[in-house]
Amino acid sequence: MSLLFRQHIEQIISLTDDEYTEILSYFKPKTYKKHQFIVQQEEPVSQEYFILKGLVKSYITGDDGKEHIIQFAMENWWVTDYQAYVNKEPATYNIDCVEATELLSITSEQKTLLCQRFHKMEHFFRVKATSGYIALQKRILSFMHQDTEQRYRQLFEQYPTLFQRVPKAMIASYLGVSRETLSRLSVK
Amino acid sequence: MSLLFRQHIEQIISLTDDEYTEILSYFKPKTYKKHQFIVQQEEPVSQEYFILKGLVKSYITGDDGKEHIIQFAMENWWVTDYQAYVNKEPATYNIDCVEATELLSITSEQKTLLCQRFHKMEHFFRVKATSGYIALQKRILSFMHQDTEQRYRQLFEQYPTLFQRVPKAMIASYLGVSRETLSRLSVK
Repeated sequence: MSLLFRQHIEQIISLTDDEYTEILSYFKPKTYKKHQFIVQQEEPVSQEYFILKGLVKSYITGDDGKEHIIQFAMENWWVTDYQAYVNKEPATYNIDCVEATELLSITSEQKTLLCQRFHKMEHFFRVKATSGYIALQKRILSFMHQDTEQRYRQLFEQYPTLFQRVPKAMIASYLGVSRETLSRLSVK
Repeated sequence: MSLLFRQHIEQIISLTDDEYTEILSYFKPKTYKKHQFIVQQEEPVSQEYFILKGLVKSYITGDDGKEHIIQFAMENWWVTDYQAYVNKEPATYNIDCVEATELLSITSEQKTLLCQRFHKMEHFFRVKATSGYIALQKRILSFMHQDTEQRYRQLFEQYPTLFQRVPKAMIASYLGVSRETLSRLSVK
């Protein structure tokens, strides 16, 4: 399982065995059951997570009681409420487990120390933060000028396995449409 | 003018005079007139920009010929089409100057070299990339669960000077509402 993590880091930088062992010591493994919360709205957020196995969703609950899904995250993704994690503020959204999930967690302080210790880990996290920025910008662009069908297709092309792993109601919530609208798109 | 840039960097890391002189040598100053393009949709994007003076907007033009404004950027902001800049792809949107604008520009290759040369500049850019990610996530959340009035107020609180610097039609385009709707909000 930590082989996946090493491969993930080595997509961007190279590591010796000793370096990897030392890097891994900054992280703690965690296991969550289906439906458990990783981050809860209004609560402090001390950890960032790397997903080894499983699938989580970030969401806010609207005044109408409905879930609005901001993001899904699965194997090889980093996830937390970054605003809360970085600025030591209460969480602005929830993250819970759609499947049983295995994670590696790191505190903000440990991440800073890890980046000070290894310049190349600072580089790794700079590259990942930039990739995250690009992914969010794509999502904003899709909100601004794509219709539901285009957004559905784009989601399907980006994450084909997602559709086997999450209920259709969640896909609808992510796209901001009703179940009925989603069904019309699915049969096309 | 480069004092502003040094102060901006030193909000996150400390620099000696020699270090700053060397860092500055990786950048080139550029000047654009009002209405000039910094980034053009479909064109390659070789530079990232730090704004010393002025104001720019990022936008896409919809099939209906309307401008959809993604983002404004002004003094002390970094701006480019990051997807195009990082992945060497054609630009997915335009950036043009709402005011005459003075910039410092850096190529992707020079930025990589700068970060290799100075671990602390890699740290600086990691922190900036994370801040950018957080800002975009706020914008996504506001798209998902705030009404127009809440989004208008949030924009006003975040960037009070913006309302003196850009025409109302651009504020309306950023919020995704008509001029008429905006006027109703403005008088409240």
